[in-house]
Formats: sequence, C-alpha cells, structure tokens
Amino acid sequence: MNKFSIDEMTKYLEEIFPQIRGKYIILKLEHSLSEVQLVATEANLRPGNTISGPTMFELADIAFYLAVISLPGSSTLALTTNVSINFLRKPEHSNLIASAKIKKSGRKLVVGDVEIFSEDMSQLVAHAIFTYSLPSSTS
Amino acid sequence: MNKFSIDEMTKYLEEIFPQIRGKYIILKLEHSLSEVQLVATEANLRPGNTISGPTMFELADIAFYLAVISLPGSSTLALTTNVSINFLRKPEHSNLIASAKIKKSGRKLVVGDVEIFSEDMSQLVAHAIFTYSLPSSTS
Amino acid sequence: MNKFSIDEMTKYLEEIFPQIRGKYIILKLEHSLSEVQLVATEANLRPGNTISGPTMFELADIAFYLAVISLPGSSTLALTTNVSINFLRKPEHSNLIASAKIKKSGRKLVVGDVEIFSEDMSQLVAHAIFTYSLPSSTS
Amino acid sequence: MNKFSIDEMTKYLEEIFPQIRGKYIILKLEHSLSEVQLVATEANLRPGNTISGPTMFELADIAFYLAVISLPGSSTLALTTNVSINFLRKPEHSNLIASAKIKKSGRKLVVGDVEIFSEDMSQLVAHAIFTYSLPSSTS
Repeated sequence: MNKFSIDEMTKYLEEIFPQIRGKYIILKLEHSLSEVQLVATEANLRPGNTISGPTMFELADIAFYLAVISLPGSSTLALTTNVSINFLRKPEHSNLIASAKIKKSGRKLVVGDVEIFSEDMSQLVAHAIFTYSLPSSTS
Repeated sequence: MNKFSIDEMTKYLEEIFPQIRGKYIILKLEHSLSEVQLVATEANLRPGNTISGPTMFELADIAFYLAVISLPGSSTLALTTNVSINFLRKPEHSNLIASAKIKKSGRKLVVGDVEIFSEDMSQLVAHAIFTYSLPSSTS
Repeated sequence: MNKFSIDEMTKYLEEIFPQIRGKYIILKLEHSLSEVQLVATEANLRPGNTISGPTMFELADIAFYLAVISLPGSSTLALTTNVSINFLRKPEHSNLIASAKIKKSGRKLVVGDVEIFSEDMSQLVAHAIFTYSLPSSTS
Repeated sequence: MNKFSIDEMTKYLEEIFPQIRGKYIILKLEHSLSEVQLVATEANLRPGNTISGPTMFELADIAFYLAVISLPGSSTLALTTNVSINFLRKPEHSNLIASAKIKKSGRKLVVGDVEIFSEDMSQLVAHAIFTYSLPSSTS
C-alpha cells in the first residue's frame, strides 16, 4: 500500500513542482479519487474576468495526476498521453474545484475523467477525459 | 479586412493578457495560420527536465486563438469549447514552436489543429484539435 | 413539453433511421438521460470475438442523440460536432448498454457524456464525451 | 519488411471483417499512410440525405487501422484506445475518402490523424486524431 496522506502529497508536489507552491489545495485523496482546489489569482484570468482555459487544464491535470500516483503500484513518472476537454460555462474569477475519478487502471494505461466545478460546487464549468501512460516496470 | 500585423498582435496580446508578457513570440500570422514560440523557463518544467503538459496546452491555445482572431469578421471574444490533445514525445527543456491551422471557419464554430514541434522543428511533440465558439453577432 | 415516451421514440427512430430497426432497444428516456441497449450480431464483431469500436461509437451516438432530442425545446436536426471516446476494455460478444447524460444544455451547443457497460452493467468498457450543435432557431 | 500490397490487404480485411466486404476501397497504402474510400449506400445516411457520423467514424477507423498494421513490426491485434473526431460539414450522399497519417509510432502506442474529404477531395468534412495500442511483444 503506497497511498499518501494529503499532507505528504502536498509536500511531495511542492518538491517536484516548486512553481505551483500555494496555487492548489488538495481537498480529498482516496483510492481512485482526488479533489483539488485552485487558489485563483489575476494570473489565472482572461478577458471578461473569467478563469482561462489553460488554468482549468492545469487544475484538471494536477487532480488527475494525484489520483494516478495514489494508485497502489503506480509511479510518479506517469505521463499524460491524451486529454479531451469540454469547456461548458465561463467561470467567474473564483477558486474552482476539480474532482478526478479513475475509471480503468491497467498495466500500461490509466483512464478516467475530471469535472471542474465553481467554488460552491453548484455549477459544472468543464469536463475532461484523461489517459495517462505508466512507465514499463521492466525498463 | 481586420488582419493584424505581428507587432500589433503582440501589443494587443500583452494588453489583454499582461501575465504572458515575454513568454511567447509570434513568428507568423497569416490568414488561417499562426506560429508561436514558447520562451521556456524553469516554471514550464516538470520532473525529468521536460516541458509540462499544461505549458504545451497554453502554447497551443494561444497559437490557435491568434489564428481565430485574425480571421476577417472574427471576434476577440472567441472562446475555446473543446480541445483534444495527444502528447507524443517528452520534449527537452527548449523553446517549443506551435503551428496552428484553421480547417473550418463557420458562423458559430471555428475548427482546426495545432502541431507543437521541438525548437529545431525536427520533432513533433504534441498534436491537438481545437474548436472555438464565436459570440453571436446579434447579441 | 415535447418529451417522447419510449414507444414513441422507438417508432420515430425507425422512421428516420430505417437501417437500425431491431438493432437497439431503448431502456430509459428521461430528462437529460437515456439508456440504450445494443442487440449484438456477427456484424458487430472484430477479430478476437470482441465488439468493434465503430459499433460502440454508433451505440454511444444514438444514446446521446436520444437524450438531446428529448430536451424541451430541442430539435431532431441536432448534429454531432465533436466526440472523444476512450476504449477501456475489450468487451466480449454481448448486448452492451450505453448510458447517456447531458451535462450542459445551451442555446447553441449540448454537451455531455456516455458510458458503455457490459450487458450485466458490471464493467465499464468505453467512455465518451459528446458535443451536439443545435440548429439556429431563426434560420 | 512486412508491408502488404493493396490487393493483399483487401483480401486480408475481407477475411477478418467479412461484414465490410464491398463497403470500402483501399486507394493508397504506404509507409505511415493510407487512403480509403467509402462505397456509400442508403445504410450510411441520416436524415437530411447526409452521411451519418458513425459511418464516418468507421471509415476513419479502418483507414487508420490499415496505416497501423502496415508499419514494419506492427501487429494486426492493434486496438483503438482513443479517438477524438470533429465533424466540420454535412457531407452529401457520396463516396467519401479518408486519408490517414501516422505521426508517432512508439513501442506501445501509435498516434496520428485522419482527414475525411468529399469524393472530389475539394472539402474537408471531418478530422480525427487516433491513438492505437500495440499488444506487448512479450505477452
């Protein structure tokens, strides 16, 4: 069992991605699940006072990455191979929440989806499907 | 004809997205086409000294956005509705180049793709298809 | 309110798509939801005695189309604009079930997803996100 | 070198997918490339006398499959793992042509895209990106 606590994962993330320190809060971390909140700043906006697409992509990617590396037997070297994302509504400037769920965990590929909600969880603003590739255990 | 020169577009981008100033260089801007280069920094890396997925997503999104708003009759309020991106190779820390092409420009939707190459254009590292939605002309 | 009963919808589908008569059974039809079962035959197989990808795509597309045209104010002229589908497991030759859910219904676009399950609903075999475009009400 | 001639491939396809006999014509088969034409019938139509989405998906999938299995060292057991498809224009009832190109051929995954054109090649009607998974050589 190599599951991390939220504190351990937060520390680990800040070590490997020092540039995102303070930008995300891990709300939940369970088997096949994670929930991550964006700490929105001016840098995340695009014209119209709305959160930018790349900001939502990064939020979703981090939530899914945490769900993947929390799997027993997984590796922190897991890599995104495909993402398809639908942007549903223009979110106002706020601390969006991403909820990631693993739907299939294979030997080579891990597949699932991420929903991004407004801060009060009342509105779905984006939905993405992810495929991550796991490094070969023999290489 | 509302096409912009590269200089005009660079100034315009820095006005509406001050947070990306200095991060991207527009190399080409033609009807239905754009080419944008990333000025990579430590902030764009992920473990393994490779450019992160969200960095490539933002680069592709900016290149496609420029191609869209350069269309005659288009609007700077165009919004991303769907992106599907395949990550093909781990790019080394370098100034990647995105090449965007519009494939269909309709009244409501603009569709096309973006290829992301290594700095010397010898390797394709990511490929994405984009759909942007244009605001209704009557609203 | 222009919702259809399952019987009305079955008759309507057979009228507009006579070529799929007998190939699909509508199990559920509610606001923003539908469930459709494939009646699998040899024509749906690919090597390895597994249901082919195009068969699953058609099943998912029909389930989502039914959910879209069941929306109040929707139109039977709704058209698929984008689909991203992940194939998760090789399904054995069986009567797969697709479950479609609308996640955002706008004036121009309807967005949601479809999960395809094995006949006993115990395994998820594919997951897709759909965007449909609605014809302009003024044209 | 395990490349097939167009005749060999046509025979092979009819053997493994007898249900598609006569529905497709292979126009081109080269390293990393294929071109396949649909022989359209009433069964491929949807309301509005237009070729249905699932028909275009199957055409694209077959073209990409042929490009994959023509690669040296590839396997006919290659499986679709992800497809994202944009439908750009309503094609009239006609013999559409799909042009598939491999963009990255790895040990585990093969990635590329397919463009679907009207019969006279003058209009792009759909564009898709594909990921196929290759079976492990050791299993």
